[in-house]
Amino acid sequence: MKRIKLIVAYEGTNYQGWQIQPAGTTIEGILNQKLTELTSEPVAVIGASRTDSGVHALGNVAIFDTNTKIPPEKISYALNQRLPDDIVVQHSCEVPPDFHPRKCESRKTYEYHILNRTFPLPLHRNDCYFTYRNLDVERMRQAAADLVGTHDFKSFCSIHAQVKTTIRTIYSLTVCKEQDIITIRVTGSGFLYNMVRIIAGTLLQVGTGERSPLEMADILKAKDRAAAGPTAPAHGLTMIGIEFGEYLK
Amino acid sequence: MKRIKLIVAYEGTNYQGWQIQPAGTTIEGILNQKLTELTSEPVAVIGASRTDSGVHALGNVAIFDTNTKIPPEKISYALNQRLPDDIVVQHSCEVPPDFHPRKCESRKTYEYHILNRTFPLPLHRNDCYFTYRNLDVERMRQAAADLVGTHDFKSFCSIHAQVKTTIRTIYSLTVCKEQDIITIRVTGSGFLYNMVRIIAGTLLQVGTGERSPLEMADILKAKDRAAAGPTAPAHGLTMIGIEFGEYLK
Repeated sequence: MKRIKLIVAYEGTNYQGWQIQPAGTTIEGILNQKLTELTSEPVAVIGASRTDSGVHALGNVAIFDTNTKIPPEKISYALNQRLPDDIVVQHSCEVPPDFHPRKCESRKTYEYHILNRTFPLPLHRNDCYFTYRNLDVERMRQAAADLVGTHDFKSFCSIHAQVKTTIRTIYSLTVCKEQDIITIRVTGSGFLYNMVRIIAGTLLQVGTGERSPLEMADILKAKDRAAAGPTAPAHGLTMIGIEFGEYLK
Repeated sequence: MKRIKLIVAYEGTNYQGWQIQPAGTTIEGILNQKLTELTSEPVAVIGASRTDSGVHALGNVAIFDTNTKIPPEKISYALNQRLPDDIVVQHSCEVPPDFHPRKCESRKTYEYHILNRTFPLPLHRNDCYFTYRNLDVERMRQAAADLVGTHDFKSFCSIHAQVKTTIRTIYSLTVCKEQDIITIRVTGSGFLYNMVRIIAGTLLQVGTGERSPLEMADILKAKDRAAAGPTAPAHGLTMIGIEFGEYLK
């Protein structure tokens, strides 16, 4: 039995998110189905980031155990033959049997994309949140800086989430603008439910002037979801990639 | 009666191209329908570039004549309320009654996008042509340079096209690479049927090494469609914009 790691890219538009649901098509469901067909074994993947409906990925990570004779590096090619064109495996390899994409220490990177111009652009309608309201990137940067570090991010966590601790570490949080697209890029030790989208929603309010960039420290201190901004729409979010530290490069 | 100019952006994936067809949905057909609803007059737009099925646009141009009381600059906003989200008008204004987007002198710019990496990316499946074959951008640039200027582009024109002359001027033709995306950008006085896609298909052959970059002069001289490379797939092509010179900025 081998444990295989997949790096998976997808456009989330046509899926009910990563995780298998009672109804609707999910990334996890499609991967299980196509890997089961490919290996002729029942396969159940475990994903690193259980992205919501509409969220995209360039480098989400999933593992599964298999007895297949297909060489680990070739599984990506064979699986892509079967996958729909909005899910593409970017890499496959064998990993140690105790590697677990959610339990092992990791650094995850997400990007939130905002299209900021007078009218939307059709080619970005599924991968950028559009707003015609003028956003001040310098204010957004100033606010973002106060979230970097180890904090209790309870204010940036959806209230129905059940977790042991709401303390997380953000290693970097940058706001860049290229032409009409503003990219909020965040790397952290892990993220609470909806945390990146709530950060994006709060930074959007700072960008429009609804909030002062100086409010971030108070929002953290409040430990209250109501203190932060709204959850920005899912389709602006992309799971960029995951690094697994010394245990697994 | 006023003549109105529209700048139109669209994703071509779900359309049978610009021009109204006996069957299937077209950009022209949708614009006519929605403008007719908006103005309560029968409207028939005239488009500058009659893009093929699957080709996208950031700045295609269309005109129509109307007696509507809606201020010209507001037509874009009102029309976008009615259009599907893969067609978005970027600008509307009044133009002189003799302005014609195909008869007036213009410079058109197109881009052909190639995603060049081991595996495709879902978010670029509709707007980039994908190839895993290694492309040498320097060779492509060398070949491209020989097409700049005024030439008989008969070798780069689909054989079923009926035109008075196959002489055209290319003002610039550049090949740039950013991360995994190669962009062929061409500006010209006008383009023959499939000309940009045949140029892209020929430059792709130069990039893979199937052809020498030195062949371009001979291909032009041949004045024979069979001398050039294949027509690259439609979905890699985007109509970027049109400048109308001194007559109309």
